[in-house]
Amino acid sequence: MTPIGFSSRRAFLAAGAVSAASVWIPGPVHGYSASEVRAAADGERLQTGLSKWDLDTPALCVDLDKLEQNIAKAQTVLTRNQVAVRPHAKTHKCAAIARLQLAAGAIGICTAKVSEAEALFAQGIEPMCMTTGNPSASKIRRAMQLRKRNPHFIQAVDYAANARDLADAAKAAGIVADVVIDVAVGTRSGIPPGDDAITLAKLVDTLPSLKLRGLLSYDGGAQHVTGFAARKERALKGLEEHVRTYEAMKAAGLNTEIFSGGGTGTYSVQHLTPGFSDVQVGSYIFMDMQYLAIGSEDGNPVYKDFAPSLTVVATVLNNRFPGRLTTDAGAKALTLNVPRAGVIGEPGMDYNAGSDEFGVITFTEASKTYKIGDRLELIVPHCDPVVNLYDQIYGTRNDRVEVVWPITARGKSQ
Amino acid sequence: MTPIGFSSRRAFLAAGAVSAASVWIPGPVHGYSASEVRAAADGERLQTGLSKWDLDTPALCVDLDKLEQNIAKAQTVLTRNQVAVRPHAKTHKCAAIARLQLAAGAIGICTAKVSEAEALFAQGIEPMCMTTGNPSASKIRRAMQLRKRNPHFIQAVDYAANARDLADAAKAAGIVADVVIDVAVGTRSGIPPGDDAITLAKLVDTLPSLKLRGLLSYDGGAQHVTGFAARKERALKGLEEHVRTYEAMKAAGLNTEIFSGGGTGTYSVQHLTPGFSDVQVGSYIFMDMQYLAIGSEDGNPVYKDFAPSLTVVATVLNNRFPGRLTTDAGAKALTLNVPRAGVIGEPGMDYNAGSDEFGVITFTEASKTYKIGDRLELIVPHCDPVVNLYDQIYGTRNDRVEVVWPITARGKSQ
Repeated sequence: MTPIGFSSRRAFLAAGAVSAASVWIPGPVHGYSASEVRAAADGERLQTGLSKWDLDTPALCVDLDKLEQNIAKAQTVLTRNQVAVRPHAKTHKCAAIARLQLAAGAIGICTAKVSEAEALFAQGIEPMCMTTGNPSASKIRRAMQLRKRNPHFIQAVDYAANARDLADAAKAAGIVADVVIDVAVGTRSGIPPGDDAITLAKLVDTLPSLKLRGLLSYDGGAQHVTGFAARKERALKGLEEHVRTYEAMKAAGLNTEIFSGGGTGTYSVQHLTPGFSDVQVGSYIFMDMQYLAIGSEDGNPVYKDFAPSLTVVATVLNNRFPGRLTTDAGAKALTLNVPRAGVIGEPGMDYNAGSDEFGVITFTEASKTYKIGDRLELIVPHCDPVVNLYDQIYGTRNDRVEVVWPITARGKSQ
Repeated sequence: MTPIGFSSRRAFLAAGAVSAASVWIPGPVHGYSASEVRAAADGERLQTGLSKWDLDTPALCVDLDKLEQNIAKAQTVLTRNQVAVRPHAKTHKCAAIARLQLAAGAIGICTAKVSEAEALFAQGIEPMCMTTGNPSASKIRRAMQLRKRNPHFIQAVDYAANARDLADAAKAAGIVADVVIDVAVGTRSGIPPGDDAITLAKLVDTLPSLKLRGLLSYDGGAQHVTGFAARKERALKGLEEHVRTYEAMKAAGLNTEIFSGGGTGTYSVQHLTPGFSDVQVGSYIFMDMQYLAIGSEDGNPVYKDFAPSLTVVATVLNNRFPGRLTTDAGAKALTLNVPRAGVIGEPGMDYNAGSDEFGVITFTEASKTYKIGDRLELIVPHCDPVVNLYDQIYGTRNDRVEVVWPITARGKSQ
């Protein structure tokens, strides 16, 4: 992603990245804690009509209308493009959201780590693909134990030795495990496309306790390329070798039913990759300042395919100095400080979450005079690590808290 | 802190920022998960002789010898300087570590948020000072309910209206609450020094349900000034107005028994501030790449007053490409990517935790050839937000896991 300087950033914010959906009028603020909200909940469904402006802050919120709209949008576009949806659950780590995605038509979810897969399966999520190889004997054993309990679990591999270890563990568990080859785009993870990948696929195909299902080719770098045309070109060119690998595997009689990759930035063009079976959209449900900045197909600097549904509500602690505010949401509430969080309805504000406990806002203009205790609503820099900080997410509709969802796999980075 | 470019960064790392304490020879790696380790524990004390190299990764570890040495070092220096120690628990959020600090002679701990104070008190920690004002009615009520149960709780205030609300809540709770004035250094939080602060102190002194205990003057910005002389000058000059405020309060007959501030970067000079009662050291127990870079009094570019005790153990996932490694510890394991994490024993490695799930290492030289599954041990960019990601911290001695401590207030940012 191109770094955004202050003046172009200002234009970007003014172009609608942080526009308010409606006039923002917080009522009298009480500040209910998570335990108070849970105590008021009937099961998961709240009966209180509690306003999100009354939550104790920092509070992680998702606008349910926007969330549902985003899930439906990806499903509709990809179905029209004859590509399936296999959303990456590393973004939300939340069984309730995985259920919504599956109910909308997703063919399964992806997980990044085995502990994440275990936690989501424990909450009843079954069709899942772990998109990274497991580097240790214990993780391999755990993955195969999970596969034993969950026949809808698919494991990625990217090394021959790893495939053999996986086969041994599958055999020991008394199962035939579904496996996909993680074929690298770039140098981060996965086996390079071409002969190496095909050889590994053949090895998996010959191991009796493994069942080859196809290949993964996720291009993380393509997702955040600024500008639709450049992003599309990068997404398609970056997979040309992978398509040849896919075709060679197919010609060799190997199973290629899964040819999966892509994400929120490239979902709408990924069907142009021959053979592509499904797209691993992740951030599309929430959006964040990173993704808003990649730009739309129509040239708008703000990426508008999906609505920013995820926010953190923060409280003003200090308003003493002209052009400055301090809030209670710093690095422990927003993680990365790059790009800056966006303040909804306040394109003139720059939000610095560089302090652990405090957010520092500087502004030349604001929509109102902020008092101590006033709330602000923030679009986060990058959604995945932020969600990973919180135990629960408040699902709101028309600013009323409707559900409180546990972040099922919060902290499961192992 | 001055940004460190690659070449000077290299020199900094080679100067000993990431030197190995001993030769690093991981044994055969099993990868015990947190639940397996807890199952093997007798109470909190492990009997297994489990090596930290056998932990499931990413694993947050603290070297107990170094932790104890750091706690003793600050206590010794500050006691010699006739200043008390009031460590900030926002760094560790861990009741077990707070107990070690109190046992070593700390007069209390500090907390940043009311939810943090509640969680630590629930685990038996009593003497505590909440260093930030509470901006909402519910937080004020909770703080005063906490004060009712914990007579050793002190609350900071920085606005007159806030002091009156606090007084009302204290009265409603049937208590006289201990209060300190948070006097600002800079513009982030607190009331500016001088007449405003003195007027607020007088107000607190007149409110029957509040008891004035003194003032806080924490200069966060001074802590990370590079170079001892510059840091010392900034720390002392930055408090000159605060000293005048302290003296005026004293002259007016107000209680000034607490005049607290300072931190890990300035702890050894803070007694030169007239009237200073105690230092709020936080990161000194763990250290991190930020604090290692501020430099020692003897001119060493590495700050060596405290030993880096806190590490994250990570596993190699990919070694296919010369000069590159991928690990399983990215942004969800290390938060901020600035400054870069340091790889212990590998000053030639640059560690990029910019991906959510992956760490990407580039190097021109390494001490050995890394295989898939090999472990690396990292000094984190900045300790506070990293600790806040994990449910537990493994306490090790001579690389054996001795204790598993819950991060009591993990995620308590409210």
